[in-house]
Amino acid sequence: MSAETTFTAPRGMRDFYPTDMTVRQAIFKAWTDAARASGFDAYDACVVESLDLLKRKGGEEIVDQIYCFKDKSDRDLALRAEMTPSLARMVAAKQNELVFPLKWYAIAQCFRYERMSRGRKREHYQWNLDIVGEKSLLAEAEVIATALDALRRLGLGDAVSVRINNRALLAELLEKTGVPRDHHAAAFLALDKRGKIDDEALGTLLRDSGLSPEAVDAAFRLLQVQTLEEAESLLGGPTPASQALRELFDLLALFGCAGAIRFDISVIRGLGYYTGIVFEGFDSGHTLRALFGGGRYDNLLGDIGGRPETAVGLGFGDVVVAELLSDRGVLPSAVESRDFAIGFMTEAQRADAISIAYALRRQEQRVDLGLHAEKPKNFFARAGKGGVARAIYIGPDDTARGTVRIKNLADRSETETTIVALTTPTP
Amino acid sequence: MSAETTFTAPRGMRDFYPTDMTVRQAIFKAWTDAARASGFDAYDACVVESLDLLKRKGGEEIVDQIYCFKDKSDRDLALRAEMTPSLARMVAAKQNELVFPLKWYAIAQCFRYERMSRGRKREHYQWNLDIVGEKSLLAEAEVIATALDALRRLGLGDAVSVRINNRALLAELLEKTGVPRDHHAAAFLALDKRGKIDDEALGTLLRDSGLSPEAVDAAFRLLQVQTLEEAESLLGGPTPASQALRELFDLLALFGCAGAIRFDISVIRGLGYYTGIVFEGFDSGHTLRALFGGGRYDNLLGDIGGRPETAVGLGFGDVVVAELLSDRGVLPSAVESRDFAIGFMTEAQRADAISIAYALRRQEQRVDLGLHAEKPKNFFARAGKGGVARAIYIGPDDTARGTVRIKNLADRSETETTIVALTTPTP
Repeated sequence: MSAETTFTAPRGMRDFYPTDMTVRQAIFKAWTDAARASGFDAYDACVVESLDLLKRKGGEEIVDQIYCFKDKSDRDLALRAEMTPSLARMVAAKQNELVFPLKWYAIAQCFRYERMSRGRKREHYQWNLDIVGEKSLLAEAEVIATALDALRRLGLGDAVSVRINNRALLAELLEKTGVPRDHHAAAFLALDKRGKIDDEALGTLLRDSGLSPEAVDAAFRLLQVQTLEEAESLLGGPTPASQALRELFDLLALFGCAGAIRFDISVIRGLGYYTGIVFEGFDSGHTLRALFGGGRYDNLLGDIGGRPETAVGLGFGDVVVAELLSDRGVLPSAVESRDFAIGFMTEAQRADAISIAYALRRQEQRVDLGLHAEKPKNFFARAGKGGVARAIYIGPDDTARGTVRIKNLADRSETETTIVALTTPTP
Repeated sequence: MSAETTFTAPRGMRDFYPTDMTVRQAIFKAWTDAARASGFDAYDACVVESLDLLKRKGGEEIVDQIYCFKDKSDRDLALRAEMTPSLARMVAAKQNELVFPLKWYAIAQCFRYERMSRGRKREHYQWNLDIVGEKSLLAEAEVIATALDALRRLGLGDAVSVRINNRALLAELLEKTGVPRDHHAAAFLALDKRGKIDDEALGTLLRDSGLSPEAVDAAFRLLQVQTLEEAESLLGGPTPASQALRELFDLLALFGCAGAIRFDISVIRGLGYYTGIVFEGFDSGHTLRALFGGGRYDNLLGDIGGRPETAVGLGFGDVVVAELLSDRGVLPSAVESRDFAIGFMTEAQRADAISIAYALRRQEQRVDLGLHAEKPKNFFARAGKGGVARAIYIGPDDTARGTVRIKNLADRSETETTIVALTTPTP
């Protein structure tokens, strides 16, 4: 086995070295800060779920992409492919105690066994925002506005557009063109494949889901609709579904998002469980896969055996947004910074170095302490590599005098201070 | 299937509701803040590892407790039981690029398939601190002092004692009593079981690892040694191993830890790979399992196929420390707090409510916005449940006048301000 084979992570799984963690932590921080600002509470569930739960929900595609295994008591377990089934399970378990609407967020590692391409790994971290038990479209608005707030915090506020549709509008349009209700779910899943497969294959899929040749033609024409006005004129005027979209756009304008949102009839979402508004966020140039997506789902809690409850959710992965940060040249680059680096020339200075490091750390300073005696050249080469604000290097003369020099590594200025002053706690 | 069965997490796995997350986040924050103050860099690896890697390392016990499975290409994968093999793999993969000594930390979910008892689940989160490539005992001191700093940050600074030993000292003592070197590793593993199995079973284990009946008696006598002085007198004076312990105690005193540390010859650690100093942290009353443990390991990098490099590591789980927080009555209890709760009486006030929430959130205030029109009684009942600092409830009169009242929920005082002032960004 070659050294490379031996030391790499399993295929599709990622290692995070400190430089990679800088990026990941910046993304997690933006997610967390945005969720907290909007009043979401954190929750989490284990990455290992029962296979049964994932099957009870689960998009049609996802089930064969699940990593599954048996434990030693022959239980069927799986690594979750998404967080929503676990959320639904947790809500159902305490449905009589929890206060609704609830607004929860999680940053959840999720696994899918699939072919890899840009923006696709076999695991990723996904930020989940869910509002359960709220009918008002303000729920959709909160979730979308919070996602955009996270992007703003990452310096990507102007780099994103959210495409919004309503499955109820699609249903009205399909019905108008003669596709009966019980073929809608299959038609949605087929139409969602547009752009991923060619139109001929899509036509076959649609016919397989029970559409007549005329209905297939009509479905293709539907996807040409560019504006909400066009959709309304096909429907003979405003409908509940088109009015819901207009209301949502108004609400999002109040959240300062008017410039970032637009109607897009082709946004459908692959998962079977959406029942109303659906949306996807893309980079403005649409050069990458979706940054986030979500929508309203009314049936999930009931489907897994709980009391039915409406919900709105969003999933936002860490891979595509990291690519966008990189493409835009705004990738956070500094490894975690230190306020001080401290070094010492001989063992005789070690105790002073430790005492100073200890005192500074107690004052919430981040201190990198050299762990063995070293020459000044070596110490300053290391400290000068970036990310360090100030350096203290202690030699025998310093110990003798009882003073040290604090070097500001940005402007090379120095200040001298006594060791006693540095190590005596400020009152 | 009963509702309870349906909605629980898989056996041994934990759900974290928002109140549970408050505790977990407080622990993670203490770990992260302590690691950063001491100049450790974050890293991470995927919870899924190759089974081969875990087998190459892995304590003797651990291998049969691993959750393992095959992916669809028949690769043998596993959920890691501990982080150190992944750390060693990542270091080995970039051994020529990385700058040593490196100081890394991670908060890693780890899985073990074992019987459950207090302080034992089948998954837990473990804080890992490792210093790779540093011979000085200052590495051990940094790791132990950083663990104690995390406990201080949790309000447990005086609740813990660290018991420290040196496997090299045990080796010197075993050799002195006639146990040859090549039986030491087995003897360590057997001696580590003391207290977990009865002395008779322990004696059998020791004889099975190749010790003569006299050597078994001698090994039992060793474990009666109470002080470093006693150990040294058995050895005929100070030895390199006893001097290392004395030096480490001196270093830890400089980190303010003198009161929390003591020599304990019975601390051995179950894992086979430790080669020098070993330590375990316990609650002072020793009513719970170990809070953390670690030591120096010189052979792991070489064992998994890398270039040999000395290292010091620590693992600190989230379960026992949460129990200690609970036992001591210092469990963080508040669900994430909000700066504001905002509600509105009729749809006509909704736009004002959103605009105020949006403006406050932009000023880094955490705002819970009511998502539908509600009566003041309902709004204030919800807002008054704790964790909310101020409440703004908007009725028709407020909209008409263009003002709102901000109610301080702690002292019930009110201030009035204009909606324009609240929603206009401060320059």
